[in-house]
Amino acid sequence: MSRSSAVPGRVRGAGGFLTIDLDAVAANYRTLGTRLGPACECGAVVKADAYGLGLAPVARTLWDAGCRRFFVALTEEGIALRFLLPEARIYVFDGVDQDTTADTAAHRLIPVLSHPGQIETWATYARTQRTRLPALLQMETGMNRLGLSTGEAETLVSDAADIGALELDGAMSHLACADEPEHPQNAQQLDNFRNALAILSPLGLAAASLANSSGIFLDPAFHFDLARPGAALWGINPQPAGPNPMGQVVKLQGKILQTRTIDTPSAVGYGATHRVRRGARIATIGIGYADGFFRSLSNSASAFIGGIRVPVVGRVSMDLITIDVSAVPAEAAQAGDLVDLISPEHPVDDLAREAGTIGYEVLTALGRRFERRYLGGGTGS
Amino acid sequence: MSRSSAVPGRVRGAGGFLTIDLDAVAANYRTLGTRLGPACECGAVVKADAYGLGLAPVARTLWDAGCRRFFVALTEEGIALRFLLPEARIYVFDGVDQDTTADTAAHRLIPVLSHPGQIETWATYARTQRTRLPALLQMETGMNRLGLSTGEAETLVSDAADIGALELDGAMSHLACADEPEHPQNAQQLDNFRNALAILSPLGLAAASLANSSGIFLDPAFHFDLARPGAALWGINPQPAGPNPMGQVVKLQGKILQTRTIDTPSAVGYGATHRVRRGARIATIGIGYADGFFRSLSNSASAFIGGIRVPVVGRVSMDLITIDVSAVPAEAAQAGDLVDLISPEHPVDDLAREAGTIGYEVLTALGRRFERRYLGGGTGS
Repeated sequence: MSRSSAVPGRVRGAGGFLTIDLDAVAANYRTLGTRLGPACECGAVVKADAYGLGLAPVARTLWDAGCRRFFVALTEEGIALRFLLPEARIYVFDGVDQDTTADTAAHRLIPVLSHPGQIETWATYARTQRTRLPALLQMETGMNRLGLSTGEAETLVSDAADIGALELDGAMSHLACADEPEHPQNAQQLDNFRNALAILSPLGLAAASLANSSGIFLDPAFHFDLARPGAALWGINPQPAGPNPMGQVVKLQGKILQTRTIDTPSAVGYGATHRVRRGARIATIGIGYADGFFRSLSNSASAFIGGIRVPVVGRVSMDLITIDVSAVPAEAAQAGDLVDLISPEHPVDDLAREAGTIGYEVLTALGRRFERRYLGGGTGS
Repeated sequence: MSRSSAVPGRVRGAGGFLTIDLDAVAANYRTLGTRLGPACECGAVVKADAYGLGLAPVARTLWDAGCRRFFVALTEEGIALRFLLPEARIYVFDGVDQDTTADTAAHRLIPVLSHPGQIETWATYARTQRTRLPALLQMETGMNRLGLSTGEAETLVSDAADIGALELDGAMSHLACADEPEHPQNAQQLDNFRNALAILSPLGLAAASLANSSGIFLDPAFHFDLARPGAALWGINPQPAGPNPMGQVVKLQGKILQTRTIDTPSAVGYGATHRVRRGARIATIGIGYADGFFRSLSNSASAFIGGIRVPVVGRVSMDLITIDVSAVPAEAAQAGDLVDLISPEHPVDDLAREAGTIGYEVLTALGRRFERRYLGGGTGS
């Protein structure tokens, strides 16, 4: 029954196989750079372990493709990246607090400062160290999440003491609705960001940054000096209403543990939510919600065998899913065979839609139990 | 602004703090043992890194509490557990295939065999090694997921060759609807399991096992010789329609990065899905869906500060959530303060309900970026 020779590199009973195409990451980085043009530098957001794809291979690939500015969420992520890329400029979205000042400085991380308390903490630390420390300012422009208000920015400009202790790298803000190009909030945030830059102009900031992946596909007025794509680099469609300009990066396959032909009409899985007819064939796959294959994919996800759709039936279990493989010949779905869950005919955005979420969440949830394989490696340097 | 002294052990900018009460795990194990009585041994399911709580501390705690039989999903998980507990009996639900026979035998793992191909693979390997190898048989009784059919069991009993190569430990099956005690499938699966045991009786199996956490709270007829709780050990209610007999194990707290008083009625977060009135106070927390705080908790999750409910408003971002803290005094919600996301007033089952899922999925999704603290340690041996 087992056909393990069909599975390259399979070891130790992993239930799923995740293939990450690093050449596609590099190609996507170049695509975004072309879209931005020469006036805007293209950075990369690699927080959350590069959205679940693996920080080390992804960051190295992007560096080789020419990326020099990287963004992470946490200090700890910045430290890990520093050991990988000694020369990169590394920004930490969550900024800095009294517990992280020393680590942030020691690893030459650039905190994104979003409120007066953070600015004061970082400036105070700089003064105690008798040095100037780098920072990027975050402006609130309409998301009400992180960032300085207009009033706080005005106060900051007039406060020579704290500003003098810092080497301000630039100012950024974040778009809430850039994946909906017609949303009125985009223009409003652009106006607010321009207004903030005018307030901050006495500080002589080097760089302004507003565009995330989706923002790169808005009008060039949103580009400014530095773009911060994440999702598009991994093949997520930055403008879901249109065709996807990005190349696919991720492939996920699950291993069939057992195939069964139903001899009596009966139910499948927890809660007996799906009934199967006599003669149907059910394959059980060694992937479940503990691997990030969301339980909301119960009775809704599509899988593919040789390009033919075979639906997930019944509830997603912790470590297992069941799929109805009646549509393919019995010999195409045997124990040991692989089933495509994310693939060219079923990209990550499609799986996300079946789960009622977005591709970003699917990627970051991809579990640690998969066997991972990396294809290519950027420019090969 | 920062009040880091209130956060014991905070380092390197983690956005969330996960506390796991190992004494509560041990107490829950004893509670289940009392419920089962002396005729049924209580094992423990510790697959998926002990449902996300950390295999090493949890498995050691359970061993110290008297547990001797452990269940995992994957060979790799079994190997990790073998290094932690050299004397435990370790069962692997996914069984064995040609790639994992050698590792399974070398680490004295007991595969759960669910189809004839697995039995043949394991028996063949035993013969080549000139030894008898242990196994647990899984019977299909109504879930149509993994397990031998009645016909396959009959064939097996008559096939002296393969059976002779194995040292069969017992037979198990799995209940699909045990969390709904009135569901007719429970009685049906019990009948089917008894029928399967009768077919297998010529093999002289040592142990029969049917009950998961919820099955332990069904009629004692479901208990047999060996129970396999998982979820209930971590405080998930095994019978959701009634009060929870289990003690709480998990506490999750998020750190406030910034608090903002809204000066103009405006929107919060991606997609501008939540409007806030002037004067409202919004706190931004350093936890998001990349930490397993599901995006489906957008505009629905409850958080608590000092026992007062403060709702999550707007969409859950990858690394951030926003909560409306207008209900608590401003001084109770400042940058650096902690907010309770899973706590005695808001147990994991409640957060799961807000996400439209079950506590199992919440636990297994708990991310790797949290700072983890373990309280107690079982019996203290």
